[in-house]
Amino acid sequence: MSAPHPLSAAALADAVNRRQRSARDVVTEALARIGRHDPSVNAFTDVLGGRALAQADALDDALDGGGPPKPLAGVPFAVKNLIDIAGLPTRAGSKINRERPPASRDGTLVRRLEAAGAILVGALNMGEYAYDFTGENVHDGDAHNPHALDHMTGGSSGGSGAAVAAGMVPLTLGSDTNGSIRVPAAFCGCFGLKPTYGRLSRAGSFPFVGSLDHLGPMTRSVSDLALAYDAMQGPDPDDPVATTRPPEPAMPALETGIDGLRIAVAGGYFARGGDPEVFAAVARVAEALGARRTVELPEAARARAAAYLITAAEGATLHLDRLRTRPQDFDPAVRDRLIAGAMLPAPHVERAQRFRRWYRARVLEVFDTVDVILAPTTPCRAPKGGQTHFVLDGVTLPVRANIGVFTQPISFIGLPVVAAPVWLDDGLPLGVQVIAAPWREDLALRVARHLERTGICTAPIAELA
Amino acid sequence: MSAPHPLSAAALADAVNRRQRSARDVVTEALARIGRHDPSVNAFTDVLGGRALAQADALDDALDGGGPPKPLAGVPFAVKNLIDIAGLPTRAGSKINRERPPASRDGTLVRRLEAAGAILVGALNMGEYAYDFTGENVHDGDAHNPHALDHMTGGSSGGSGAAVAAGMVPLTLGSDTNGSIRVPAAFCGCFGLKPTYGRLSRAGSFPFVGSLDHLGPMTRSVSDLALAYDAMQGPDPDDPVATTRPPEPAMPALETGIDGLRIAVAGGYFARGGDPEVFAAVARVAEALGARRTVELPEAARARAAAYLITAAEGATLHLDRLRTRPQDFDPAVRDRLIAGAMLPAPHVERAQRFRRWYRARVLEVFDTVDVILAPTTPCRAPKGGQTHFVLDGVTLPVRANIGVFTQPISFIGLPVVAAPVWLDDGLPLGVQVIAAPWREDLALRVARHLERTGICTAPIAELA
Repeated sequence: MSAPHPLSAAALADAVNRRQRSARDVVTEALARIGRHDPSVNAFTDVLGGRALAQADALDDALDGGGPPKPLAGVPFAVKNLIDIAGLPTRAGSKINRERPPASRDGTLVRRLEAAGAILVGALNMGEYAYDFTGENVHDGDAHNPHALDHMTGGSSGGSGAAVAAGMVPLTLGSDTNGSIRVPAAFCGCFGLKPTYGRLSRAGSFPFVGSLDHLGPMTRSVSDLALAYDAMQGPDPDDPVATTRPPEPAMPALETGIDGLRIAVAGGYFARGGDPEVFAAVARVAEALGARRTVELPEAARARAAAYLITAAEGATLHLDRLRTRPQDFDPAVRDRLIAGAMLPAPHVERAQRFRRWYRARVLEVFDTVDVILAPTTPCRAPKGGQTHFVLDGVTLPVRANIGVFTQPISFIGLPVVAAPVWLDDGLPLGVQVIAAPWREDLALRVARHLERTGICTAPIAELA
Repeated sequence: MSAPHPLSAAALADAVNRRQRSARDVVTEALARIGRHDPSVNAFTDVLGGRALAQADALDDALDGGGPPKPLAGVPFAVKNLIDIAGLPTRAGSKINRERPPASRDGTLVRRLEAAGAILVGALNMGEYAYDFTGENVHDGDAHNPHALDHMTGGSSGGSGAAVAAGMVPLTLGSDTNGSIRVPAAFCGCFGLKPTYGRLSRAGSFPFVGSLDHLGPMTRSVSDLALAYDAMQGPDPDDPVATTRPPEPAMPALETGIDGLRIAVAGGYFARGGDPEVFAAVARVAEALGARRTVELPEAARARAAAYLITAAEGATLHLDRLRTRPQDFDPAVRDRLIAGAMLPAPHVERAQRFRRWYRARVLEVFDTVDVILAPTTPCRAPKGGQTHFVLDGVTLPVRANIGVFTQPISFIGLPVVAAPVWLDDGLPLGVQVIAAPWREDLALRVARHLERTGICTAPIAELA
């Protein structure tokens, strides 16, 4: 097994715990890299140098004084700006939310990462109110893909993907309602974990669609993903939808390989409607895993449509008063979809919810015969910034509405997914979803780790000027 | 304590268990009374003489052979025609449902009552698809109030109230979504129990609004109410929303009186918007109970509005395909409200659901300081049949939309209620809701029993020609 990348969370924490490096040194380096590259990448909306250095000094003092090592000691991280940071208004990518009072304390996941030694260095750019697949933002400027600055990062956790891919921090948090962690992971070529619905606390984050929202980590390695995930797990009384399950650490089994795992490729809906290289990426991953079976997720197209309806209606419910009183302060691309959502007839949405229960039951049956399912993350590589249409399977389609075609049917029923990056050629990366049954993040992480170890999935730092 | 009325369920079961009367004799008498009075009352849509007599003979054989006594031995009962009866299509008051295949077995509550010795004699008239407060039905003809045949029974369980008030059977089952047991209990002058949401199984019944539907008994005495209720309690694996609580029999404590119970009158919203005699009935009951406190259910008017929205939208969801394909086969008064419900914007309904959680929490706080709350059942006595408008507090209002003004805010959060009849004068009866906290049917029944024992609430058999 190769040594971890020197800028990985695991390597940094190891160096800080061994006192080979100080946390201050690590954080200073991250801040410098942010200062150098963020003007072109635009991943950050807030850089918290003072807070981060104070936190680093406190950690250095504790470790110098013989304090116990911490799993994420000195690891700089940043969070999508819909997660509360004490002292800042939680803007959720919007203009309107900037008028909110500053958060009185950090969100649960920030506190848990800091309790594990990690050090928050900033807040990250995102699509307005998380209703976005592009990473573009009219208020804060678009995030740029570190691997090709004129291309999209994907969204809505665009800053989270870009900050990791640019090597500014080894760990970020994003949120994923219909694909908002997985899409930027695919476009920016990094790893992302969308856990089981309810697994990680959403307390202290600005919501979008209560029944679909997930928070999760993005990193450049699978071990870092598992490390952060393990640090954030566990019940949280402040989060009404969170699990009551005790933490189920994924790290211990991470290197056990894939022997005995039943891995299949999603066919049908998930095998068409994308660029050929998308399916080539899935095929490469499947071959590396010896996965020759194909499984069908029944009515996946309806699942996507139902996810759309529920998203628009629940999103509109959340924003109804703002839509009524200050529509001009929204990003027009977000506002118009929310207004459409505000007019959706209730029985359509209710039927979508009923279908959802049916679909969930059918998909769970598929997991009786398979442990992990592979599917593309996006139907294409990252489009150019500002691109409004693309051609998929010969059909010209609007970009924004169709990037999530393969992610929506999965998050719709809260399945855990590791989004893994694949580099087929010299072009931009592609993404594969490694999907497991509810509460089996460990299986998705083990498969992703195997793909990383065998060189099929990697997340290199972008070469920036 | 006075002897139970000879036609009460308790007295009939006692006589049958002691073999003073045969079940066949009791059932034959009930069938005769139905034959005599139902042509004018129109409570029944199906009379099941053959089935009932066969069941009676089997019971007589068992008891003659030394079989154990049964709490409802030989008690004739009938059910609103939205509850499955093996061999009949479950019409739910509609024309459309008559084309359904016959039910393959009886609904859970029918089976439980029959297991307790009761004998099903028929199915009862109801408002179409239970979306009704009048007891009028364009397909089956209107049910008529036994105490004044030119007046409404109230609905939608109009046949259930009328059959009991006419003395045709001592026990019926109704359903209550927004008041459909309590309203006919008030208009027909009998007792009704709307249990806690989820308490009694709905398996084998045609639904209306999943989150609001309750089934429950109607009788002419509180002991009969408790007797039937106890026979029907308990978890049912066929009912996804039913309680997992074990049965909590109410009979054992029924005669313990009201000492120590904290009883209050609902003020504010529940003390206006009705005819003066309605509040006089509540005042008489309150005085008899020594209840001098007034409590406020916060935002009851909004609760009613929210119940309306959810009812219309969920009802429309249920009937959407029928509305699309055969609108002409609905009762116009039902159809038009369902079509309106089909167009309700989803965010309005979602907000109503959110308000519901808030309201439920606030009302539960009220029960920290009080055990039982009294409120009017309806804003007036039974209107004339066909009457479309009435004047309440000087305002002319449509009848159908406003009969449930005092019942809707209570069922909205699933509170158990005994609807108790009060006769203030020679006119038609009035109704008082005896409301308890969730799962405390026993308290409402104890208070109602006290009112019955002291002569404040009675349910005489109507004098029919």
